[in-house]
Amino acid sequence: MITLYHCDAARSFRPLWMLEEMGLPYELKMLPFPPRVFARDYLALNPLGTIPFMIDGEARMTESSGICHYLGIKHGPTPLMVDPGDPAYGAFLNWMYFSDATLTFPQTLVLRYTQLEPEERRNPQVAGDYAKWFLGRLRAVEAATGKSETLCAGRFTAADIVIGYALRLADNIGLAKDFGPNVAAYWARLQQRDGFKRAVAAEQKAGIEQNVAPRVRA
Amino acid sequence: MITLYHCDAARSFRPLWMLEEMGLPYELKMLPFPPRVFARDYLALNPLGTIPFMIDGEARMTESSGICHYLGIKHGPTPLMVDPGDPAYGAFLNWMYFSDATLTFPQTLVLRYTQLEPEERRNPQVAGDYAKWFLGRLRAVEAATGKSETLCAGRFTAADIVIGYALRLADNIGLAKDFGPNVAAYWARLQQRDGFKRAVAAEQKAGIEQNVAPRVRA
Repeated sequence: MITLYHCDAARSFRPLWMLEEMGLPYELKMLPFPPRVFARDYLALNPLGTIPFMIDGEARMTESSGICHYLGIKHGPTPLMVDPGDPAYGAFLNWMYFSDATLTFPQTLVLRYTQLEPEERRNPQVAGDYAKWFLGRLRAVEAATGKSETLCAGRFTAADIVIGYALRLADNIGLAKDFGPNVAAYWARLQQRDGFKRAVAAEQKAGIEQNVAPRVRA
Repeated sequence: MITLYHCDAARSFRPLWMLEEMGLPYELKMLPFPPRVFARDYLALNPLGTIPFMIDGEARMTESSGICHYLGIKHGPTPLMVDPGDPAYGAFLNWMYFSDATLTFPQTLVLRYTQLEPEERRNPQVAGDYAKWFLGRLRAVEAATGKSETLCAGRFTAADIVIGYALRLADNIGLAKDFGPNVAAYWARLQQRDGFKRAVAAEQKAGIEQNVAPRVRA
């Protein structure tokens, strides 16, 4: 059984969505945010205190996009993964890595310096620098989704899951108003997917059952 | 022929090192840093203006760790990659994704707000926040390299290349003085590898031949 540790709306939503798209059985454990403050026991399991954390047999993983990649390979085959023989393989891998390194980190700075830090440590300059940085890099998604309904390979893949989560985060922290028209339409399409809806429902259900309150959205 | 666009000491060093370890033929094109300011023509090729940029037939990639992954799969087999059937596969993938999303981005904030920004936009608080953040996450490398000479699978892999570059960057921007003893020893070992030395030599040679000055180190 795969176990996934998750905080409401955190990047662990990526593997949760992947699990739902693949129809794999899993156990979802909800933690209050940030776990390193509100769930100290969790540090025994994941000393970094970061979310996600996934256990699958001997495997222990902490990287949200890396876990999606792992699930697709270890529990596939699945059309969510792009084969090395496919001409889109390079593009697929690039989106997989781009999703967190390039599109998620800058947003965590916006969140940190506008909301999470105490008033005197907030920093509108830095938050603005990285909102701009994020929107600059998002031009790559704007270009790709202007040519096709999905990012690569002519079908919905794990790349759309990991990039889609970066758009969900942007929506939650108030950056979606600056999406280009293609990204806005792409994000609207992603939210209509059954797999996305099942993942959101699983997140809400687990939060209620395990008595972990949802986070306040921007 | 594989073409790699590189700036001195930038994260494009990851695929350069991977190419050298694999012994693949490639063409290295050096750009001044940052290319979006000093090499405007480059934007026609990579509209994001980021480094690296790799061309291999139809494939176009911008993510440094993703390119290493691509090279290992498309131009392998190679012992630098860990097979999905190997018990270390999850750990291997996790390091691949961790390298840039978790260990490189925080360092770019230190660099930006201590050196790259004009004086009035520099920010010691934010630089300090992310130096601390980087060193906190580096505890995962400290733990792993306390148990083994390399990160996973009992041998040198692409994971050591992509994480090794994060240590090179830390060394360049003055963070290596805070490495734990295992990380310090691991980084010293990596610099002794023939493949690492060949990559550094290739970087220097191309810089001289193409008349692109090396960047000033911290």
